[in-house]
Amino acid sequence: MPTTEQSQGLSRRSFLARVGVTGGAGAMFATMGALGLAPSAESATKVPFQPPQPSDFRLRGRGAAKVLILGGGVAGLAAAYELGKAGYDCTVLEARDRVGGRNLTMRGGDKLEEIDGATQRAKFSDGQYMNMGPARIAQWMTTMDYCRELGVPLEVFANANAEALIYNESAGMTAPVKWRTAKADVYGYISELLAKATDQGALDQQLSATDKERLLSFLSDFGAIGPKSSGYAYTGTGRRGYTVDPGAGDQAGTVLGPPPSLSQVLASGVGRSFSFELGYSQAMMMFQPVGGMDAIPRALAKAVGNGRIKTGAKVTKITNLPNGVEVQYVLNGKTKVAKADYAIATLPPHVMAKIPHNLGASVQAALEYPTVSSAGKLGIEYTRRWWELEDNIYGGITNTDLDISVMWYPSYGYHGKRGVLLAYYNSGRNAQTYDPLTHAQRLERALNAGAKIHGAKFKKDIAASLSIAWRRQPFIEGAWVNWPSRGAEYRLLNQPQGRVYFCGDWLSYEIAWMHGSFESARKVVTELHQRVLKS
Amino acid sequence: MPTTEQSQGLSRRSFLARVGVTGGAGAMFATMGALGLAPSAESATKVPFQPPQPSDFRLRGRGAAKVLILGGGVAGLAAAYELGKAGYDCTVLEARDRVGGRNLTMRGGDKLEEIDGATQRAKFSDGQYMNMGPARIAQWMTTMDYCRELGVPLEVFANANAEALIYNESAGMTAPVKWRTAKADVYGYISELLAKATDQGALDQQLSATDKERLLSFLSDFGAIGPKSSGYAYTGTGRRGYTVDPGAGDQAGTVLGPPPSLSQVLASGVGRSFSFELGYSQAMMMFQPVGGMDAIPRALAKAVGNGRIKTGAKVTKITNLPNGVEVQYVLNGKTKVAKADYAIATLPPHVMAKIPHNLGASVQAALEYPTVSSAGKLGIEYTRRWWELEDNIYGGITNTDLDISVMWYPSYGYHGKRGVLLAYYNSGRNAQTYDPLTHAQRLERALNAGAKIHGAKFKKDIAASLSIAWRRQPFIEGAWVNWPSRGAEYRLLNQPQGRVYFCGDWLSYEIAWMHGSFESARKVVTELHQRVLKS
Repeated sequence: MPTTEQSQGLSRRSFLARVGVTGGAGAMFATMGALGLAPSAESATKVPFQPPQPSDFRLRGRGAAKVLILGGGVAGLAAAYELGKAGYDCTVLEARDRVGGRNLTMRGGDKLEEIDGATQRAKFSDGQYMNMGPARIAQWMTTMDYCRELGVPLEVFANANAEALIYNESAGMTAPVKWRTAKADVYGYISELLAKATDQGALDQQLSATDKERLLSFLSDFGAIGPKSSGYAYTGTGRRGYTVDPGAGDQAGTVLGPPPSLSQVLASGVGRSFSFELGYSQAMMMFQPVGGMDAIPRALAKAVGNGRIKTGAKVTKITNLPNGVEVQYVLNGKTKVAKADYAIATLPPHVMAKIPHNLGASVQAALEYPTVSSAGKLGIEYTRRWWELEDNIYGGITNTDLDISVMWYPSYGYHGKRGVLLAYYNSGRNAQTYDPLTHAQRLERALNAGAKIHGAKFKKDIAASLSIAWRRQPFIEGAWVNWPSRGAEYRLLNQPQGRVYFCGDWLSYEIAWMHGSFESARKVVTELHQRVLKS
Repeated sequence: MPTTEQSQGLSRRSFLARVGVTGGAGAMFATMGALGLAPSAESATKVPFQPPQPSDFRLRGRGAAKVLILGGGVAGLAAAYELGKAGYDCTVLEARDRVGGRNLTMRGGDKLEEIDGATQRAKFSDGQYMNMGPARIAQWMTTMDYCRELGVPLEVFANANAEALIYNESAGMTAPVKWRTAKADVYGYISELLAKATDQGALDQQLSATDKERLLSFLSDFGAIGPKSSGYAYTGTGRRGYTVDPGAGDQAGTVLGPPPSLSQVLASGVGRSFSFELGYSQAMMMFQPVGGMDAIPRALAKAVGNGRIKTGAKVTKITNLPNGVEVQYVLNGKTKVAKADYAIATLPPHVMAKIPHNLGASVQAALEYPTVSSAGKLGIEYTRRWWELEDNIYGGITNTDLDISVMWYPSYGYHGKRGVLLAYYNSGRNAQTYDPLTHAQRLERALNAGAKIHGAKFKKDIAASLSIAWRRQPFIEGAWVNWPSRGAEYRLLNQPQGRVYFCGDWLSYEIAWMHGSFESARKVVTELHQRVLKS
């Protein structure tokens, strides 16, 4: 069969190429549909990347160069990994005691130190872990390709769950509501309203008679609303949930209800949470490495070769030279100097800005230009998975206007004895509230907030807890950065300055995602390699 | 901490009990919120179940009885399992060569025979499998509790995926569209329409000024529509997807667009698919046992004890006696008779209706009353996971008006070399189209349909395929049944007839779900046990 198919495919493709020329893309698209050769909808083209390879040098009489990589986070490791494929002599200098940067997974026994010296020791049980930084991957992201290439096994990250909760205290809610209930009510009422307006002719300028008919049919299904005779009334359905589940015999189930009024639903603000799930980077399905997100930097480091990575190496000076780069760093209390043909600096810009260099005032100004964001997380290991046992919540996110922002139920270890629940993941002003607190204070505050949503059980059966405030993490000092504008500063740092390249998620359009780090690494590796080939 | 909490909890509870008495449930609910003791939203009460236990007999001087269970599907096994906890002497008679009934997982080497003798042999590779019947579990279902109790490990079943497709050929679509794109467009346009109508005062009878403000704010976010000055216009956003993904440097990403017109979106009917995800039984998160759904019947059978289960035992006669039950069956060509104190008949009603019995004409009429549904599935093992490699589709469901109905991308083995894609799961008229075909014909038809959605690659790299038409499965002869009405017939069979109890998903309000089977088993076990205790 493959042979026949392939030859058919070829002749179809030549035909389609002709249609494309004469009829334009639209004509081609329609024709493809008619031929039964429709494309797989619209998966985006990834930015093409060809890793450097040894054979690239063969015809040019060049050899791979020596490269110093400052920072062993995802961007630095990815750059070393890709350059290593072609035989580049890379050395990674990482100031912290492990690679990964913000891709940090903590397990029992791990130490977490803050900038002022406050230290926590993770006391999670065996098999339990907490992803302190990145924790989810969208299907379209380059991160997925690296997981495939590196053999990092994946499982689903539950980024949305109809059984999780929404609780907006400032909107006057006195109890949380399940996402499914909130959606049923909001979709129900907006469908009722739009059906009424449509039926009354209020949208006749926008809608033909056929449009109206189709719209009303859609709304009837989407909102589960009543017929025209009821005024298209939304009165609640099983989509809201049940107070007694459907069962056997005469147990038809008791639908949770009646729904609050339209006014109450609007006032509660529950609909504000809905757009989260629609985002290009947040829509399900999403994924995580089995056993912890640091499987990615671990796999990268292994591929790079641990002999090429120096941890505990704090860069203290960067000097661009006419024919190379000199980097001074401190390791085990001793100052050392490394020389190389090129350097790739992947430190966060605000951290780099504090390191002496000879790259000039505009580079310095550019490094100081982005603003730094706070973000924090606090994980609690419970000795029983009460969210599963009592609330039917298997993974997913509870959303609230309390300063905990969101609560994550673990996406691994379902039905296990214990689990690490993320009591908050917040950023901006909410994170700044937690940043200066001690861990004990953060925990107390998070428990009080969580108890407003889950009741007293939120404060019971606690085995361990751990919190991070990214602004207080040594050598990182922030969760991510924002560019007030992507102007001259952004463009400047996206070009090599002499023999120094800058690299990281902060030089991409997917800041705070590993995808941005990987894409930036690929860009820099490509540019550096082309320069070496031409030099 | 637990001690303090518990004592506080007690005093709070007594206080709340008083509020409940004087103020009603509503007052109590509001007060609970104010106290920070809000309940965990509205998780339904499960129908309470107390398994029979040996100590039940201690004070009554009774012993457990002997029970024949006809049918070794989920209902039959669950009944044997629960009765076994109290020492009942159960024997399960299963006509097929393995337990599980419709809970059937096929792996390489497994044989699948149809009623007319047509036989397929599954040729899936090691580690690949196909769930022929039930394939997903909602978080609230009793099935989850049995997985926990029996130690059946779970993983996520991807029941919804923004990267999966929608394709309605009869609506004139010439190419599929991603769910995310369809949602962005439908939500965008309905938000635009409702915002316009609201702003123009068309809904002033329904909405106060505050309501209107809140609604417009919601719609702006939910639909990602423009401001009032633009007429609240929906013009598309990154939620639709990208033609070039956001990346590093100047690669901001190219948003897929522009969106089709409102009229085109309505005509395409893509919105018809949306309500699926809102259903109480279908909303994510959903789960599956790791390695195949038959982990559930296997675990049940192990707990029951394989010595208590006779496979290949075809029941040929059921006789209710004044003090027991006599069941005639054929095993290995020999007719046998078994006697017991009670029988639990879990066969499908239309199958049971063909077996001679002395339960009377109204029982016979009731067994013949429900109508039988067709459903079919066809799985294809590909030698490469092109849906992941080329389309970023990791699990999830493509929805279409073609007679394949839906296409499922596998929820296990992500990034593996091979995968079993479900090329169709259809029911009703669509299934009836496939039922009478040979497997080769079903495959050809499914490949032609699938190629309309995924193009020529759908027909390539095929390693194996397998199909089932549940109407043609021996001793099952249907996918599920429907009650034209749940009247006298339903009530009759939900009561014991002499010493014969009926049991199965078909006697529940969750037909075609294992939840229904488990709930029915629990109901019958409870009734039978109470009778034995009283007898």
